[in-house]
Amino acid sequence: MSKKIAVLITDEFEDSEFTSPAEAYKKAGHQVITIENKAGNVIKGKQGKAKVTIDKSIDDVKVADFDALLLPGGHSPDTLRGDDRFVEFTRAFAKSGKPIFAICHGPQLLINADVVRGRKLTTVKPVVVDVKNAGAEFFDKEVVVDQNTLVTSRTPDDLPAFNRESLKILAA
Amino acid sequence: MSKKIAVLITDEFEDSEFTSPAEAYKKAGHQVITIENKAGNVIKGKQGKAKVTIDKSIDDVKVADFDALLLPGGHSPDTLRGDDRFVEFTRAFAKSGKPIFAICHGPQLLINADVVRGRKLTTVKPVVVDVKNAGAEFFDKEVVVDQNTLVTSRTPDDLPAFNRESLKILAA
Repeated sequence: MSKKIAVLITDEFEDSEFTSPAEAYKKAGHQVITIENKAGNVIKGKQGKAKVTIDKSIDDVKVADFDALLLPGGHSPDTLRGDDRFVEFTRAFAKSGKPIFAICHGPQLLINADVVRGRKLTTVKPVVVDVKNAGAEFFDKEVVVDQNTLVTSRTPDDLPAFNRESLKILAA
Repeated sequence: MSKKIAVLITDEFEDSEFTSPAEAYKKAGHQVITIENKAGNVIKGKQGKAKVTIDKSIDDVKVADFDALLLPGGHSPDTLRGDDRFVEFTRAFAKSGKPIFAICHGPQLLINADVVRGRKLTTVKPVVVDVKNAGAEFFDKEVVVDQNTLVTSRTPDDLPAFNRESLKILAA
């Protein structure tokens, strides 16, 4: 069955951490909906390789519209967590029990939403102390799947494992 | 008396958060020494306005060589805290009791060094949850001076207050 995957994303995202899972999800028949300030905005990856046109404004979406949430890394999550609307959406998503897929700096949004307490996860090295301080149990592994609702990876090198495990959950 | 101020800095620092205090400190007769991977490296600010030539490698410095530490913001602190040498230097500096001046994302290095517990400080909005989780007492003010050894500010708008308070400590 086709699932709808929300993506919270803004400028200076880590290019492949959006493009690789997005392509994998679409290839499996799912829909990927990018969310930022304004529909039609064109944002750029920090490597200068990917451009993404935003599908929906954060003001026009609700958790009920989606089946899963993708949080790519780069500088994007740190920018977004400076805006309470993106933090609230992330918190509501986690509280709904729907799956969240977060890679690299993606868990920074989960920290500000205060939804990592007691969760098993991984993240990129600079953020390890922050996720531990936020109450998460950290593992230095290519992918960590917690309670079938949280899939996390460290860096672009982990994308094959990240895509594989998130696709399994989308297929369930 | 002229003081020596170490600066931990790398690419995509917030331009004015280095140039403004560095100019103020030099104007007051102090020395500013930039530290990154390699002496001679040229790094760039994220606004594309400032270029900085690195004075010293992190491998060639020790806390005893300096009187104070400046941590500018931007993406620089997050990159540096991914490298244990910069985290260790920051920790040793804090333990020495010498003053630290950190602005915007600068406190991210203090978090990873685990030296903010019980300290009064401020930081830029996305990092507020992280400093609280790390045990700091957060204040939403243009500048916070704690125990005459930690001066923190939020954004470039706070630079006049940040420079004023750090200069007071350097003059003492």
